[in-house]
Amino acid sequence: MSQQNPATLKVGAIGGGQLARMMTVPAINLAIDFKVLAEAEGSSAALAATQVGDYNQLDVVREFAGTVDVITFDHEHVPMAVLEPLEAAGVNVQPPSNALAFAQNKLHMRQKLGALGLPMPDWAQIEDAHTLDAFINAHGGVAILKTPIGGYDGKGVRVVKSSEDAADWLNNLAAYGGSLLAEEKVDFVRELAQLSARRPSGEFAAWPLVQTIQENGVCSVVLAPAPNASESVLEQTAQIAKSVAEGLGVTGVLAVELFEARDGRILINELAMRPHNSGHFTIEGSVTSQFEQHLRAVLDLPLGSTEMRATHAVMVNLLGVDDKNNFVQAYPAALVAHPTVKIHTYGKGARAGRKMGHITVVGDSAEAILAEAKGAAAVLLRG
Amino acid sequence: MSQQNPATLKVGAIGGGQLARMMTVPAINLAIDFKVLAEAEGSSAALAATQVGDYNQLDVVREFAGTVDVITFDHEHVPMAVLEPLEAAGVNVQPPSNALAFAQNKLHMRQKLGALGLPMPDWAQIEDAHTLDAFINAHGGVAILKTPIGGYDGKGVRVVKSSEDAADWLNNLAAYGGSLLAEEKVDFVRELAQLSARRPSGEFAAWPLVQTIQENGVCSVVLAPAPNASESVLEQTAQIAKSVAEGLGVTGVLAVELFEARDGRILINELAMRPHNSGHFTIEGSVTSQFEQHLRAVLDLPLGSTEMRATHAVMVNLLGVDDKNNFVQAYPAALVAHPTVKIHTYGKGARAGRKMGHITVVGDSAEAILAEAKGAAAVLLRG
Repeated sequence: MSQQNPATLKVGAIGGGQLARMMTVPAINLAIDFKVLAEAEGSSAALAATQVGDYNQLDVVREFAGTVDVITFDHEHVPMAVLEPLEAAGVNVQPPSNALAFAQNKLHMRQKLGALGLPMPDWAQIEDAHTLDAFINAHGGVAILKTPIGGYDGKGVRVVKSSEDAADWLNNLAAYGGSLLAEEKVDFVRELAQLSARRPSGEFAAWPLVQTIQENGVCSVVLAPAPNASESVLEQTAQIAKSVAEGLGVTGVLAVELFEARDGRILINELAMRPHNSGHFTIEGSVTSQFEQHLRAVLDLPLGSTEMRATHAVMVNLLGVDDKNNFVQAYPAALVAHPTVKIHTYGKGARAGRKMGHITVVGDSAEAILAEAKGAAAVLLRG
Repeated sequence: MSQQNPATLKVGAIGGGQLARMMTVPAINLAIDFKVLAEAEGSSAALAATQVGDYNQLDVVREFAGTVDVITFDHEHVPMAVLEPLEAAGVNVQPPSNALAFAQNKLHMRQKLGALGLPMPDWAQIEDAHTLDAFINAHGGVAILKTPIGGYDGKGVRVVKSSEDAADWLNNLAAYGGSLLAEEKVDFVRELAQLSARRPSGEFAAWPLVQTIQENGVCSVVLAPAPNASESVLEQTAQIAKSVAEGLGVTGVLAVELFEARDGRILINELAMRPHNSGHFTIEGSVTSQFEQHLRAVLDLPLGSTEMRATHAVMVNLLGVDDKNNFVQAYPAALVAHPTVKIHTYGKGARAGRKMGHITVVGDSAEAILAEAKGAAAVLLRG
């Protein structure tokens, strides 16, 4: 019935991080032959790693692509110089390079979103100190400055009050593609994320809007669905996700990180064209997890229901505290006190600040499940 | 905090079937280093298979045991001659050989359950035609005759109306351990299953009682929780599971298959000392799946909540229809029509009658989810 090989479905993920690790689960459930091109031995996704190599090398990725029906990603860092020749040679890459290009360059992303008329913070392309200072002065004496390429989880992002705060970047512009991106520092009441998925053939499905709580620029807690979101906000965010997915040609899972500004505006902050930390709650919280949906989407299979499986879900990240505690030693204490929490650890070596796991709890009371998740996290973090 | 190595948890499963395959999922979630000793390359649990070899060979299993903290099982067929020397040498085997011995010999199981005063069909040890005919005559002219060792899924079980119906077995008694087991053919209104788990240190937890529907001696549908079960039945079945687990020294997951007789008696049919087909619904239907609970139990970690995650769950088995249809080719048709079903396929080659997968649906309406599951199964079985 399918246009594909009828008896096997083979998906290859580039990158051996926790996202590829968590894709392994729906691959097991659906008997999808799931392979990972990992950066190194002993990666988080080592169980599915069939090749170890450098994704910057065309020959390495070409060899890997030859073992699967479709290539997808654990991260957005595979260079265009690798992806474009593969696509030209007929390799099925999802999301395709022309979508990923916007994830790899935040300046191009802003330009494209602007062309689509989508709501964003004010922004400007910065190529010199004068332009930056003018932008800062026009926005209350402060701006968010970003390197267009290479940033994530707070890296490559800086709050600046003068071009002097960015002298190092301005003096080394070539390393960042020749420009920086200045953005209005949004006075927001909270951060939101809208997760969705889209198939190459067009089907689109969105999960409920969630609230994300950041600490030190890294996602700390996700509340699903977002508490007290108005109908107007829900309509806007669902429409934004659909416009981004269709306008940028994204396939697979798309996460749109959003600001809810004090003045009521909903503004696009960042995009991720892959399963995302804001969607980990879907493993237990949704009928279809983001990892299953991603595999279905990149295979152009029908998407699953994105309904919640409980009234509420909460996710709390487990960030490394030192180079010893990998959270496993505290399982007995955490599990005996918190029998309803679902612990996910990523098999990574311990390191302070590293995303090493998360906890999800679902239930009818948002307050109760948040307390449970935080309680279990506290036990694990104590070690 | 744990007595075990604090930073890693290593579990080894003997047998590469779908049960080991499904244990791989919670092992990924909890960063348990999960290894499988598979019978052959390309097994259902191949992703986690670190060794291929014959579990009847002590040296093979000893080598495997040396790579993990605890040995557990995908099936109950590892001989005592392998397990007992390993335990004597200090290998941690869960469930232990003295529990598994009862799963390996249905006559010993009946004797032990009798000693514990647990409710069963009438039964007798049969060593000759005369005794069998006497048992048949005393039970309305019919009996269920079983080979005490080696039977499963209807194999090694026969309805007999005379010793002549079992002449082949009676003439070859040595192959079955010297005796056969005759049981009363229970006039039952339905079959039930009580799933539970127990840790070596004693903690016990039971899931809700379920109803199982067999076709041709193989489980076809599971309804969770069992519809219209009286308080009295629920109390009895939970107590039976606890008594069996404690009385036989079972650790890990235990499935007790039960008859609900027309006269109201609850009678123990079969036992399985491992995750069981009657518990597949727990993957989506319960806070803690039987596969996660089994790993936690054999590691002597605290058990998780066995609460339902929805009012109802239904599981429908996918049995092979021929040597071509592995169900994957019908995913597009099944998934587009049934966006809430969770399909599990086991990566097995197609063969008529083979357990190759299952479908679970959860929801508030028992009728609606059964219709969804059966509808999706019909599409997949059509191929």
